[in-house]
Amino acid sequence: MSFNTFGRVFRFTTWGESHGPALGVVIDGCPPGIPLTEKDIQPFMDARRPGQSKYTTQRQEADQVRILSGVFANDEGVQVTTGTPIHLMIENTDQRSKDYSEIAKAYRPGHADYTYDAKYGIRDYRGGGRSSARETAARVAAGAVARAIIPEVKITAFVCEIGGDKIDRDAINLDEITQNPFFCPDSWAAKRWEQIVDGARKSGSSLGAVVECVADGVPAGWGAPIYAKLDSELASAMMTINATKGVEIGDGFEAARLTGEQNADAMTPDENGKPVYASNHAGGTAGGISTGQPVVCRVAFKPTSSILTPVDSITSDGDATQVRTKGRHDPCVGIRGTPVVEAMMALVLADQKLLHRAQTGGE
Amino acid sequence: MSFNTFGRVFRFTTWGESHGPALGVVIDGCPPGIPLTEKDIQPFMDARRPGQSKYTTQRQEADQVRILSGVFANDEGVQVTTGTPIHLMIENTDQRSKDYSEIAKAYRPGHADYTYDAKYGIRDYRGGGRSSARETAARVAAGAVARAIIPEVKITAFVCEIGGDKIDRDAINLDEITQNPFFCPDSWAAKRWEQIVDGARKSGSSLGAVVECVADGVPAGWGAPIYAKLDSELASAMMTINATKGVEIGDGFEAARLTGEQNADAMTPDENGKPVYASNHAGGTAGGISTGQPVVCRVAFKPTSSILTPVDSITSDGDATQVRTKGRHDPCVGIRGTPVVEAMMALVLADQKLLHRAQTGGE
Amino acid sequence: MSFNTFGRVFRFTTWGESHGPALGVVIDGCPPGIPLTEKDIQPFMDARRPGQSKYTTQRQEADQVRILSGVFANDEGVQVTTGTPIHLMIENTDQRSKDYSEIAKAYRPGHADYTYDAKYGIRDYRGGGRSSARETAARVAAGAVARAIIPEVKITAFVCEIGGDKIDRDAINLDEITQNPFFCPDSWAAKRWEQIVDGARKSGSSLGAVVECVADGVPAGWGAPIYAKLDSELASAMMTINATKGVEIGDGFEAARLTGEQNADAMTPDENGKPVYASNHAGGTAGGISTGQPVVCRVAFKPTSSILTPVDSITSDGDATQVRTKGRHDPCVGIRGTPVVEAMMALVLADQKLLHRAQTGGE
Amino acid sequence: MSFNTFGRVFRFTTWGESHGPALGVVIDGCPPGIPLTEKDIQPFMDARRPGQSKYTTQRQEADQVRILSGVFANDEGVQVTTGTPIHLMIENTDQRSKDYSEIAKAYRPGHADYTYDAKYGIRDYRGGGRSSARETAARVAAGAVARAIIPEVKITAFVCEIGGDKIDRDAINLDEITQNPFFCPDSWAAKRWEQIVDGARKSGSSLGAVVECVADGVPAGWGAPIYAKLDSELASAMMTINATKGVEIGDGFEAARLTGEQNADAMTPDENGKPVYASNHAGGTAGGISTGQPVVCRVAFKPTSSILTPVDSITSDGDATQVRTKGRHDPCVGIRGTPVVEAMMALVLADQKLLHRAQTGGE
Repeated sequence: MSFNTFGRVFRFTTWGESHGPALGVVIDGCPPGIPLTEKDIQPFMDARRPGQSKYTTQRQEADQVRILSGVFANDEGVQVTTGTPIHLMIENTDQRSKDYSEIAKAYRPGHADYTYDAKYGIRDYRGGGRSSARETAARVAAGAVARAIIPEVKITAFVCEIGGDKIDRDAINLDEITQNPFFCPDSWAAKRWEQIVDGARKSGSSLGAVVECVADGVPAGWGAPIYAKLDSELASAMMTINATKGVEIGDGFEAARLTGEQNADAMTPDENGKPVYASNHAGGTAGGISTGQPVVCRVAFKPTSSILTPVDSITSDGDATQVRTKGRHDPCVGIRGTPVVEAMMALVLADQKLLHRAQTGGE
Repeated sequence: MSFNTFGRVFRFTTWGESHGPALGVVIDGCPPGIPLTEKDIQPFMDARRPGQSKYTTQRQEADQVRILSGVFANDEGVQVTTGTPIHLMIENTDQRSKDYSEIAKAYRPGHADYTYDAKYGIRDYRGGGRSSARETAARVAAGAVARAIIPEVKITAFVCEIGGDKIDRDAINLDEITQNPFFCPDSWAAKRWEQIVDGARKSGSSLGAVVECVADGVPAGWGAPIYAKLDSELASAMMTINATKGVEIGDGFEAARLTGEQNADAMTPDENGKPVYASNHAGGTAGGISTGQPVVCRVAFKPTSSILTPVDSITSDGDATQVRTKGRHDPCVGIRGTPVVEAMMALVLADQKLLHRAQTGGE
Repeated sequence: MSFNTFGRVFRFTTWGESHGPALGVVIDGCPPGIPLTEKDIQPFMDARRPGQSKYTTQRQEADQVRILSGVFANDEGVQVTTGTPIHLMIENTDQRSKDYSEIAKAYRPGHADYTYDAKYGIRDYRGGGRSSARETAARVAAGAVARAIIPEVKITAFVCEIGGDKIDRDAINLDEITQNPFFCPDSWAAKRWEQIVDGARKSGSSLGAVVECVADGVPAGWGAPIYAKLDSELASAMMTINATKGVEIGDGFEAARLTGEQNADAMTPDENGKPVYASNHAGGTAGGISTGQPVVCRVAFKPTSSILTPVDSITSDGDATQVRTKGRHDPCVGIRGTPVVEAMMALVLADQKLLHRAQTGGE
Repeated sequence: MSFNTFGRVFRFTTWGESHGPALGVVIDGCPPGIPLTEKDIQPFMDARRPGQSKYTTQRQEADQVRILSGVFANDEGVQVTTGTPIHLMIENTDQRSKDYSEIAKAYRPGHADYTYDAKYGIRDYRGGGRSSARETAARVAAGAVARAIIPEVKITAFVCEIGGDKIDRDAINLDEITQNPFFCPDSWAAKRWEQIVDGARKSGSSLGAVVECVADGVPAGWGAPIYAKLDSELASAMMTINATKGVEIGDGFEAARLTGEQNADAMTPDENGKPVYASNHAGGTAGGISTGQPVVCRVAFKPTSSILTPVDSITSDGDATQVRTKGRHDPCVGIRGTPVVEAMMALVLADQKLLHRAQTGGE
């Protein structure tokens, strides 16, 4: 089966292949009356856009979003959402399909080439077709709309580790994130990564990364137990991003190494009797519902599978071959995954906000 | 919102609280003609059942499953599924509600007490009510049905780490898993864990754990890109289990520390032209679709939040208090999470098998 | 496929066969804090309950509902919903399975015997198994919960036609509905129907009926275009009831015979500028959204297929046979369908109210 | 809420307003390997296309469909579906927005103007915006894809009644349907309708219609009881079409006037032991599952609400006004509804076929 819709009440459906004429997303269930123009979306597209530094793929895409439905000028002449489906479309402009002619028959290891053929019996091999990370452009566009639904929440993602080299958590400065090509909040780490990533790029190798995402301002009460817990929706959302292999909430796997005492997030009441937490090991959720603390999520990206070193593989005819990928690829796909992680966080939270409102009337 | 249904085609819906009269699960979309009696389900219940060793909660539950619908004797007199909803019910027999009277008003840190109140304005505080791990009994029952749909798949979960102490992967012997109270495949580690877990139990502390689950025999082609990828469905499923904080597929976060060369799973053709893999860093998926290799998933469980050490907390009236939990709790909830992880793997795979069949006609 | 869940946000899932040990319904997404005891549900069960007059089946069922989850005493000691799944169970007490032994092999024309076998390859033939109208007991129970979510709405269903004999619309008196065994609002029609239905009963024949349902108090704005319009959700809901063959909103098929002028529902403003309608041909919806007028729906029930006259049929072995049904059946199944129609109206409206709130925040 | 997706496994999502730049549909879950080009879709678009006779709206739309994703050339060079989302887009070319300036503030009675405002607080008033029947162009495009999934089924819809004037059922000749502008299978009725419809057109009035749709070749076994019965899915699908007010399966409301004997569809075995039916009162379903007989459905369309006669109405400011519609409207919207009814039948059946295959493996 293919299943290209995400969300319960605030839902989006993406379509499009890497080298087709365009790709897009239909957003359904968006509240009406929210100001929305293409200018509100474009900055998020630009953050994800390829070809902006030598550390990411040199594919050049304008990634201009067009809003084709679901908005109208209100009485004040401001273009707002109408509550009907919002279709966002992005044309593919730089599709060098010839780059991919060699892989029409040979399966690139680590890519979805073999599995798409095994499942569907046919695939659009150009640039990975539907399995290309290019699909994430549609999510980033949808994420911009989702953010408008949750103005109370501030979402920030950054790369906290590349090739095993971690940031110094005491050196985190969120203002740094936009000052380097790695979405890195630690200026020293960013310096080191220049060398590490450039080395991988030059040698035709690739590196993995870990992206952390923090959502500040989520009120207590969002989440839909048992099978749409905030944690599980986030895990599901993040694991749909290309090249992801792991998701953690709060301390994640590290929590498995703590004792109950170490892991406890003690609470004391503030002047209104609301909890003030001494720590946030839990990452902002308990029982699948937000606690009022920042929601913290970490996502592991594997190294890009496209490398210059030949790897043993097979052809669609079942013969042995070797594959080395010569396309314009990211040496570290996790970097450009950062805006996508932010978008998925926004999309999950917007959906949960509306779900919560449906059942309880609360915000 | 509450959302208590999981699955796309093979769906299940659970109901019930820890200290209500009973709990259960309605399974919908199950293929007809599958032999199913209570005897087929009970062994899985017994594996999860509490009170079996000093390393788990001393709550005593018979956990007898009753099949209340969806089965009928076929022409040969064998009781089989009829394709209609299967309701499995388990009565709660050992509900010492008095144990929980103290926490009616005081929020246990790390538990869902505060968040359920924040969300719903009311909660059944007895034993955690709906947020209790007792709910997982219903999933284990459903998982037994799911297994019958995927006889080609063998699912094995085991604990690979408790309190930071890992098994020796070279010493893994799956036959060991049932020979110790920890679902541990490494007999030496099991010996060590006796001391570690008993120490935590005696001191009223608790420990985290990591559970690994392997599904052998999954054919290439299962998974529903982009938003119901095999990986994301597994991540979602696992993160709905109580106390989970992280999920990995294949090498998971470790993959983020490898180079593209190290992470590559080289393929060579077998005599039928099907791929033979040199390694399984990917954990059996590519592009969200199974590769034909074993599907490998790891789940992080935090230490049980119920500990004897007092922790600062607040009351439902917003006053400061301290909470120490005196109930009959698991010193390491990850242990009993193991059969639940197995069940969720089975439930996801059964759903994906039917979804795949719907779209492609293939198995 | 089987698909036993209805609703988008306020969802219910039914299970159980006619002659199994019990049947029930799991309600998910119910708002918390709503007073709910078995006493609130039972009157609706009693209205649907068989065996109350000679005009309906003589099967005797106590139809006692038990609430097994999802409620708890609030601070004032009132039992209220907690927002978690509500499981309602009804035991089957009068199951004369022997009555059905003859039809184990012979397909009753007009019943689902043949189609269930064609679809599933097996069926619980006792009393129709899953296809029995007994399943509607679960809906009526769920409907009682739905009503509590929409206290602003008053739902009334009545039989407006039996065997082609219609009520006099000028003689409608809603107080009459509970005064006769036909849910008939016209006392003269009720008198006539005594003879008509009794005649059918005595001769072993059966009659069709039309049930009308009116929901007063639905505010303007409920409905989820385009594919969950209020009209389409109602049509879907009503057509899931056993023996239904048609659904109309407002003037329905009669509207197809009117001109645009005749069919127009003129509006004038009230003192608040809200519309006052001159007529309600539309039945309370426009564009799939409620207009603020009463929502009016009519449902056609075919005559019960179980009749004493032998009808040509086939056996499960493919041989010719004749079937006459000797069980305890309703001569006019539409009568007991009336409370079910009411329940489905309530279930659709409750769902739409919550959906509307999710997107717009409005009630 | 807005809900713009239909289907369970074979799902489609429409977007677009009447006077926006374009409209479209994303089809998800389509089986791979099905030949599909724009040429396969266009004939169905042309059948629905406006401006083809004086009996329908004079809006001129090319209704050229573009396939923007989900297809690729197979090894033989034939363009086939790939199993990924298929996006079909249709540009709006003849949007005379000025026609609608008057209704920006005045609510047209019978239209969704008031209800969209009541629900969303804003609407695209140009041509009805999202509530325009123009949305059905997207469905007809999707329906063409659905037909390719069910080649065993032949779907034929026709108008059986306009303004209360019915066809002679003995005179039905399906070859006639394409020979007149009314999709009328009775050449004499078509003659009469010329006068009737032209009269309504000239006087600025409008007429209702009834459309009948027959699906031949549906095997026994399709349908998903209890809440996605074939009947209820059809009723839901048909009632989402603009201007529909009623749906019948088989004899529909007429069945409510028959006795059990009259309504019985007797069966005798054919040489393979399969049933041969003496009649088809049931319209091809029993218990919500197809019987193997033709599936028969009838849909009531109200008269177009846009008429030249002034009707009392209100403005968005709550003032009294009168509305007469001068746009280019259909005097009988049911005529152009005919291809839409066919499309919805195809879309429901394709979904049910895949659902059936998911659970049972059968076709």
